[in-house]
Amino acid sequence: MSQSKYDLYKKQMGKVADLSNAGAVLSWDQQTYMPKNGAEFRGQQLATLQTMAHEQFVLEDLGSLLDSATNENLTEDQKVNLKITKKDFERKKKYPHEFVEEMANVTASGFSAWHEARTKNDFKIFQPVLEKIVELKRKEAKILGYAEHPYDALMEDYEPGLTVKKVDEVFTDVKNQLFPFLKTILAKPKSRVDFISRHYPKDKQWAFSEKMVRKMGYNFDGGRADFAPHPFCTTFGPGDVRITIRASEDYYNEMFFAAIHEAGHGLYEQGLPMREQYGLPMGSALSLAFHESQSRFWENNVARSRPYWVGNFPELQKEFPESLKDVSAEEFYKGVNLVEPSFIRVEADELTYHAHVYIRYLIEKALIEGSLEVSQVPQFWNDRYEEYLGIRPKSDAEGCLQDVHWSYGSFGYFPTYSLGSFYSAQIEAAMRKAIPSFDREVETGKFPILLKWLRENIHIHGRKYNSEELLTRISGSGLKFSYFMDYARKKYGEIYGI
Amino acid sequence: MSQSKYDLYKKQMGKVADLSNAGAVLSWDQQTYMPKNGAEFRGQQLATLQTMAHEQFVLEDLGSLLDSATNENLTEDQKVNLKITKKDFERKKKYPHEFVEEMANVTASGFSAWHEARTKNDFKIFQPVLEKIVELKRKEAKILGYAEHPYDALMEDYEPGLTVKKVDEVFTDVKNQLFPFLKTILAKPKSRVDFISRHYPKDKQWAFSEKMVRKMGYNFDGGRADFAPHPFCTTFGPGDVRITIRASEDYYNEMFFAAIHEAGHGLYEQGLPMREQYGLPMGSALSLAFHESQSRFWENNVARSRPYWVGNFPELQKEFPESLKDVSAEEFYKGVNLVEPSFIRVEADELTYHAHVYIRYLIEKALIEGSLEVSQVPQFWNDRYEEYLGIRPKSDAEGCLQDVHWSYGSFGYFPTYSLGSFYSAQIEAAMRKAIPSFDREVETGKFPILLKWLRENIHIHGRKYNSEELLTRISGSGLKFSYFMDYARKKYGEIYGI
Repeated sequence: MSQSKYDLYKKQMGKVADLSNAGAVLSWDQQTYMPKNGAEFRGQQLATLQTMAHEQFVLEDLGSLLDSATNENLTEDQKVNLKITKKDFERKKKYPHEFVEEMANVTASGFSAWHEARTKNDFKIFQPVLEKIVELKRKEAKILGYAEHPYDALMEDYEPGLTVKKVDEVFTDVKNQLFPFLKTILAKPKSRVDFISRHYPKDKQWAFSEKMVRKMGYNFDGGRADFAPHPFCTTFGPGDVRITIRASEDYYNEMFFAAIHEAGHGLYEQGLPMREQYGLPMGSALSLAFHESQSRFWENNVARSRPYWVGNFPELQKEFPESLKDVSAEEFYKGVNLVEPSFIRVEADELTYHAHVYIRYLIEKALIEGSLEVSQVPQFWNDRYEEYLGIRPKSDAEGCLQDVHWSYGSFGYFPTYSLGSFYSAQIEAAMRKAIPSFDREVETGKFPILLKWLRENIHIHGRKYNSEELLTRISGSGLKFSYFMDYARKKYGEIYGI
Repeated sequence: MSQSKYDLYKKQMGKVADLSNAGAVLSWDQQTYMPKNGAEFRGQQLATLQTMAHEQFVLEDLGSLLDSATNENLTEDQKVNLKITKKDFERKKKYPHEFVEEMANVTASGFSAWHEARTKNDFKIFQPVLEKIVELKRKEAKILGYAEHPYDALMEDYEPGLTVKKVDEVFTDVKNQLFPFLKTILAKPKSRVDFISRHYPKDKQWAFSEKMVRKMGYNFDGGRADFAPHPFCTTFGPGDVRITIRASEDYYNEMFFAAIHEAGHGLYEQGLPMREQYGLPMGSALSLAFHESQSRFWENNVARSRPYWVGNFPELQKEFPESLKDVSAEEFYKGVNLVEPSFIRVEADELTYHAHVYIRYLIEKALIEGSLEVSQVPQFWNDRYEEYLGIRPKSDAEGCLQDVHWSYGSFGYFPTYSLGSFYSAQIEAAMRKAIPSFDREVETGKFPILLKWLRENIHIHGRKYNSEELLTRISGSGLKFSYFMDYARKKYGEIYGI
């Protein structure tokens, strides 16, 4: 019996996914268990897997299959797969082979250069590699083509359809509405936060975090958590979606909220129909911004809400009787929602966070359009922090060297961090309509009710709809910043008595 | 500047190595950290990497490079690389693409079938897959071709040049010399072993084992140890050679000797000139038997010797004062060298061990030549155990299901386990001539002196010589079983007063 064209297409996509997933395993290992001297060849190995995955995707044979399979008797989902793959294929085919290899090789050395630069707090160490990367990204924008702005071409990888025009619009709202609100908050007396920096043994932190992650519905039979210098979520296939964690023994927030965040990503991946749709658009996440909406929903809209701590603080207090003996649930809730300008994006509160993202966006846009050179980044960075957050980094390590993204060539990624938060506010609003008992479910730990809604309304669709379409299905309209502003005003207005 | 043909050849071999090493990482993860549900797709991912590594190796382009590069101005080592690669290439090219894919797919499901069969103690679960594998291995022998026996074609992968004729000769010596000696030993009173089964906390076991592994010269900056159901050593590239360990809290031997054994493999890998010769014959281990000679040298010739425990027992006793309070170094030495028939190969003493290997060899040879069918394996296995060791397995789990090898298609591998021991006796004899203070160095922990000798006489050569050539360089002749018999008679004759 001969295989259908669709089956052959699916098989080839599975091969591409195998190579990508192998890369994900090597990258995970690099950040969790790899011994020091392994670094030298790991970059090259990752580059090979990346190049081969690309080569296996842009095969002429796959192009023909994509065309001929459309004539077969297909389900709706199968048609969606072919349509989106065709679009991806046309896009990836534009890359000359040499470009792919060069990019893979340059970024292979990017991580260690960035890492050394950050450790030694010396941007100059990273600068030559970053210059090469920026040069390649500018070239990439030209290769891919764009209607209005070269940065549009790069964002397409992370959030299909997103443009500088749209991002500028959203950040105009951020500047006009969120920043003034922020200013009002910062003029108010601070919440009590002394207890956040008390002693919390690592093991006990993870014991509680794990319990909460499990309660959300994250399946440890199909995942696990390991320590790594930076928390992230990674997928090796259906049944293997992992998160990484880190802990500071005298800063409670570091592990807990990152664990919830990464588990939020994990729930999305575990909820995708990946087993049946392995390597195919229907089995893949819609976009990075939607991914971020899931992680930030659980981290902020759920785990930084008052009902969450009304419900869970007693248990936390029992775990850390010494450090939390003089703290109430209400104080804890306010403490973990302290709004305060800071240098490190991943530790920022959910309001100042968007200034961090905005600054990176401005830098990336300027680098790609050529109005800023790499050598100017540190100064530009520090000036913007002073302008938007009123603080100036004392070093590049707490300034422009803090994020790993540029080292592996990710340009166009950062805006999705803010969009994710804005989406999640819109998603919460929609969910509250469908589940009026939302607050009570959160308080009593009935997370499966929320997860079910996310599964049915978001996860199950894979890449079937684009972000605007899916948001419209869920909430009646595409992205509206007002959802986030309403959420922020209500929550923080109440905390800070505004 | 254009690259030389040799450079292009080296680059392509690097790509093949990247894919193989990626497979090694995925396989390591499968056995150490992978969550339960990851199993479903991991087999497929490994099959893809294996198939792609094969495809990248048998490229016509590589064939041309191998021919044209020989005309360039090359070093001796470069010539060796080309010559051996050419041989490998001709061999691998014989495999039809469909065969490679079929083998990869069948063995992809082999591990889980074997695992389930062993867990449920039911050979029937594994039988259909094993039948398929044996059928493919018979086919493989035909594809590869052979002069005398189809099994020769399969052993070639593990020990180049090895033949059934040679193995039969060696095992005739084993049967005529070792087995009668074994019988004499078994008639003698047993050494005291009660203390081996006392309580040894896992963490403290590893603390001591790690110290000893480090003392041997194993570099933890370029390696690490993780827990896995079975101990093994695996290489991901220069600077990343890992071992796995396991522990039983009431059986001291389980972790310690396996850790030393795997670290012995690790020292060989860490001693290969892999950095300069990545993916090339000169940077690769000579053969599996030579690999095993290194692991068993450290495990048996060193760590089961009297001087070793005279030197190290006091420290061990300090670590486990309760469990070892009434034990002397001499008693400990004799205890860890107890000779006793048992069912599990990896737990066997260094004499009965060869009966275990011999039985597997007989089965494999018979399966491949077609004189035995898979369904007959359990009965055949149990009959041979009764014949050679005087004991009969009560279940297939402690019988023919104990080894994982067949599940991934390894036929021809087992004989190298015995050859490795025989080589290591011959190596020890040569080393003693060069280092007359051998016993004192072992007693005082001067392992770097032994390691230096191994590095200079074995590791550094990669695949430059074949086993017979290298043994001859080291000891003046190819394999002679008499070295092992002399070693055994001296050591065990003395322990058992024979």
